Amino acid sequence: MIAGPIDELIRLLARVPGLGPRSARRAALALLRRPDTLLAPLRDALETCAREIRRCSRCGNLDRVDPCTICRSPERAAGQILVVEQVEDLWAMERAGVWRGRYHVLGGTLSALDGVGPEDLGVDRLLARIGTGGEVEVVLALGATVAGQTTAHYLADRLKGSGARVTRLGYGLPVGGELNYLDEGTLAAALKARQPVG
Amino acid sequence: MIAGPIDELIRLLARVPGLGPRSARRAALALLRRPDTLLAPLRDALETCAREIRRCSRCGNLDRVDPCTICRSPERAAGQILVVEQVEDLWAMERAGVWRGRYHVLGGTLSALDGVGPEDLGVDRLLARIGTGGEVEVVLALGATVAGQTTAHYLADRLKGSGARVTRLGYGLPVGGELNYLDEGTLAAALKARQPVG
Repeated sequence: MIAGPIDELIRLLARVPGLGPRSARRAALALLRRPDTLLAPLRDALETCAREIRRCSRCGNLDRVDPCTICRSPERAAGQILVVEQVEDLWAMERAGVWRGRYHVLGGTLSALDGVGPEDLGVDRLLARIGTGGEVEVVLALGATVAGQTTAHYLADRLKGSGARVTRLGYGLPVGGELNYLDEGTLAAALKARQPVG
Repeated sequence: MIAGPIDELIRLLARVPGLGPRSARRAALALLRRPDTLLAPLRDALETCAREIRRCSRCGNLDRVDPCTICRSPERAAGQILVVEQVEDLWAMERAGVWRGRYHVLGGTLSALDGVGPEDLGVDRLLARIGTGGEVEVVLALGATVAGQTTAHYLADRLKGSGARVTRLGYGLPVGGELNYLDEGTLAAALKARQPVG
């Protein structure tokens, strides 16, 4: 009883992460209820993104220009490369405003199960960037998950002998974290990373 | 650091019910990662909906045709009108497949706070449909909420003297419901609606 075009819209919305079949129905109706203020602008935004957004051939970031704004910026240290899994992670670092170097976006983690190999993560591209001379630091800023850490170990191995200084993010208490809400893995890491005081 | 078109896409996605600022970022990246299989089809679906979907001038349903498929169908009893708040509710009834009459979609509930009056809910349109003669039953299938029940009371008042037989959905245990998970209001309604057995 749902008209074909609405059904198709619901089907596609349900494939967007964060929406399921039920919330996709609600989302579709919300869009149809605001044809001029929400539906049409969203259609236009998708159109513009499809036309203008490309992946940076150097670092894997998404931008209107290739190389991306960060790779072009003379203010960002070319010899400091922070390796992240996804563009989300790059955005999170940029929101924090604490990194003044550049990035390498892997686009995922190594996974034999999903058939994701080093070539899918642009590892050779990363090595080529290091090979161009000068002092380079590579910060492995992958997730503290099994997949993230497996990939980080693999990258550390591949980067041996590249001349780059390889570091990883520190582990420990998240700022604002209360001890009794933290898992034992984090507590163990925080204890191991303890620092002298005063 | 997020390119303008992506930022705009995130802003609009965050206005879709079910998505917040955080999940909108994730949704935008998921769309950008599948330009041909998700982003473009979604843009086309929005385009088609904008062009083809209209509100039924008789019942308020959304369809490609006006009057809608249900209002046109000779198999749906014209003298049986089930009043729902939203198109979602009409869809839910249709999924259940238990109603063979027609509908009146209010598009909301009465709300002095939000400035929603009887004219916004098409009450005159509903009365006009009843006035066209013949025996009519109006089933008030509004939510068992304060807003839904206030609106149902108002509609029942307005329908007095129209000649229509006005009913409402039964209250009680939802099928599959366990007593210890139900609120006291439902339990009270179920007890009041108790039926003789055997």
